[in-house]
Amino acid sequence: MKTVTVQASKTYDIQIERGLLSKCGGLIAQVHPRCVAAVITDDNVDKLYGARVCASLENAGFSPKKMVIPHGEQSKTLNTLGSILNFLADNSLTKADLVVALGGGVVGDIAGFAAAVYLREIPFVQLPTTLMAAVDSSVGGKTAVDLPAGKNLAGAFCQPILTVCDTAALDTLPDQYFADGCAEGLKYGIIASPALFEAFREGIHRRDMDDIVAQCVQIKAELVRQDERDQGARQLLNFGHTVGHAVERCSGYTMPHGHGVAVGMTVMCRAAYALGFSHHNCTPALLEALDACHLPSSCSYSASQLAQAALRDKKRRGDQITLILPETIGQCRRETLPTDQLERLIAAGLGEEH
Amino acid sequence: MKTVTVQASKTYDIQIERGLLSKCGGLIAQVHPRCVAAVITDDNVDKLYGARVCASLENAGFSPKKMVIPHGEQSKTLNTLGSILNFLADNSLTKADLVVALGGGVVGDIAGFAAAVYLREIPFVQLPTTLMAAVDSSVGGKTAVDLPAGKNLAGAFCQPILTVCDTAALDTLPDQYFADGCAEGLKYGIIASPALFEAFREGIHRRDMDDIVAQCVQIKAELVRQDERDQGARQLLNFGHTVGHAVERCSGYTMPHGHGVAVGMTVMCRAAYALGFSHHNCTPALLEALDACHLPSSCSYSASQLAQAALRDKKRRGDQITLILPETIGQCRRETLPTDQLERLIAAGLGEEH
Repeated sequence: MKTVTVQASKTYDIQIERGLLSKCGGLIAQVHPRCVAAVITDDNVDKLYGARVCASLENAGFSPKKMVIPHGEQSKTLNTLGSILNFLADNSLTKADLVVALGGGVVGDIAGFAAAVYLREIPFVQLPTTLMAAVDSSVGGKTAVDLPAGKNLAGAFCQPILTVCDTAALDTLPDQYFADGCAEGLKYGIIASPALFEAFREGIHRRDMDDIVAQCVQIKAELVRQDERDQGARQLLNFGHTVGHAVERCSGYTMPHGHGVAVGMTVMCRAAYALGFSHHNCTPALLEALDACHLPSSCSYSASQLAQAALRDKKRRGDQITLILPETIGQCRRETLPTDQLERLIAAGLGEEH
Repeated sequence: MKTVTVQASKTYDIQIERGLLSKCGGLIAQVHPRCVAAVITDDNVDKLYGARVCASLENAGFSPKKMVIPHGEQSKTLNTLGSILNFLADNSLTKADLVVALGGGVVGDIAGFAAAVYLREIPFVQLPTTLMAAVDSSVGGKTAVDLPAGKNLAGAFCQPILTVCDTAALDTLPDQYFADGCAEGLKYGIIASPALFEAFREGIHRRDMDDIVAQCVQIKAELVRQDERDQGARQLLNFGHTVGHAVERCSGYTMPHGHGVAVGMTVMCRAAYALGFSHHNCTPALLEALDACHLPSSCSYSASQLAQAALRDKKRRGDQITLILPETIGQCRRETLPTDQLERLIAAGLGEEH
């Protein structure tokens, strides 16, 4: 079993190994006394792993209470948050009890947010079942729901007390979901690790992911340790995300997050080189890697459409926006620009004429 | 002008003086750059002070955007929270902008909660207009909404960047609301200050409240400094609140918060002496003071009803509950009891036969 320790406002471990869902009760018992454990999951994941997780919790002495929400981003609303909070209250959970988020990014984000605000915070555990959740959303304590005006616009910083990542769950992922997580993995490579980037470019094997996942969360853990509240170093994790979120928004959120990030990374790489922010052209290597991971590098929206959508991004502060630009594979830097320069930058990133 | 400084995860000032609402823009400008200021208030308060506050903000260079919610506890829901969050998003507020909570405890709690979770926290300012908000809810960073299962069951810890308390606003309070705030004031006396208790027992004058408010918030500020997250010393502020919340719940929330706390304090005083937790009988002095403040000391619910309601309180942890017991006027201590002893204690506090 691989263990990565995250040192944030709480210090906690991420445990990574095939088959851990069957043992999650015992692992949780090592960090929390027996109590009521509210397992929040979605209908897809429930069919595959709900019974296994509840049995493991029960065997370890916990009292599991399961709530199943519909799968998909359309569940990530204040309405669903309310249902989960009422479920916790109706089962009389106290601050001595536990929320267990079993699923992908949506379940992790909304169950984590519920734990963050129920009784002004009770402990929670992440059991990620997608690659995206394993390498990104289950680590670092960002929780959120969407508002009609945009994604992740309401949320809280709240660290789990433990993340248990059963890499065998990745076997059952549809190809598109696996590719989606690869986009975040590639991102870690570009901001911090040429070796990790090469692993993705050469093609990774989904039955041999323990080491890849551990490398990804190690990079994220280090940035979260330096800057839990996302005011400095942690912003590197936003590489590709401002334009990525804009692509998602323009698609009416039919494009999955990682696919948007893939396009966003391409735009930033090309723009950084074209506008002279970077002396090294990372784009050819990125395009190869995206291809190896079955991810897109372009979209059908114009720079003007994307810039407009991006300016609703929560990373904006007043009239300025902080973007992450690659200097070379393995190193990026933050650049704060006036918002009115964003469209020109995106145009350069799309290869549009001026 | 009196200033009390709160040293919590943020350090901020509470400014206290008659007439400050007309000057709030200038005071806010001393602690935050000009920006969009979303003023959240209720229909009652808006009629009295909405225009004055927006004008002051505008004169100081802010761009006020006002949202008016219906007055009363029935607004303190996830639904209203959603409306406020959508209002902030629709007005494109960023992390460089500001929420201004203008009103009593309900407005402060829900607007503060909205600021705590919008974009995972943007700054906010409290402008309390009731005595309850001035001495209690606008200080210390507890924000919340109610759930169907109970009061304040979802919320966040989030400190304001400034609290501006215009004590002239207390002139316009209905008598019952003024009495309500006196209950919290008396509480500060019993947990920390015999002199403050005496001031309430002798009868306070609502046109001369600057010093009283400053004394109250000074006591709260000190406890918040010691224990922002409510895991130790801060729990003293819960004196009278476990039973008080139970009384409110039994009344279907027709009894105002401070009135419930008044009954709760009486129950705890009487029980502490009757059961030998305390060698000093604080009850006679408390009854005099409650009378001077036009507050009740008894209710029509049985110990069994109250205990059952109290066990839904969020201060419960598993099978234990922490109660605050007076040792003498000016000093209380925490006592953690098995929940099954609560009914007996309340029965003693009500003077019921065994």
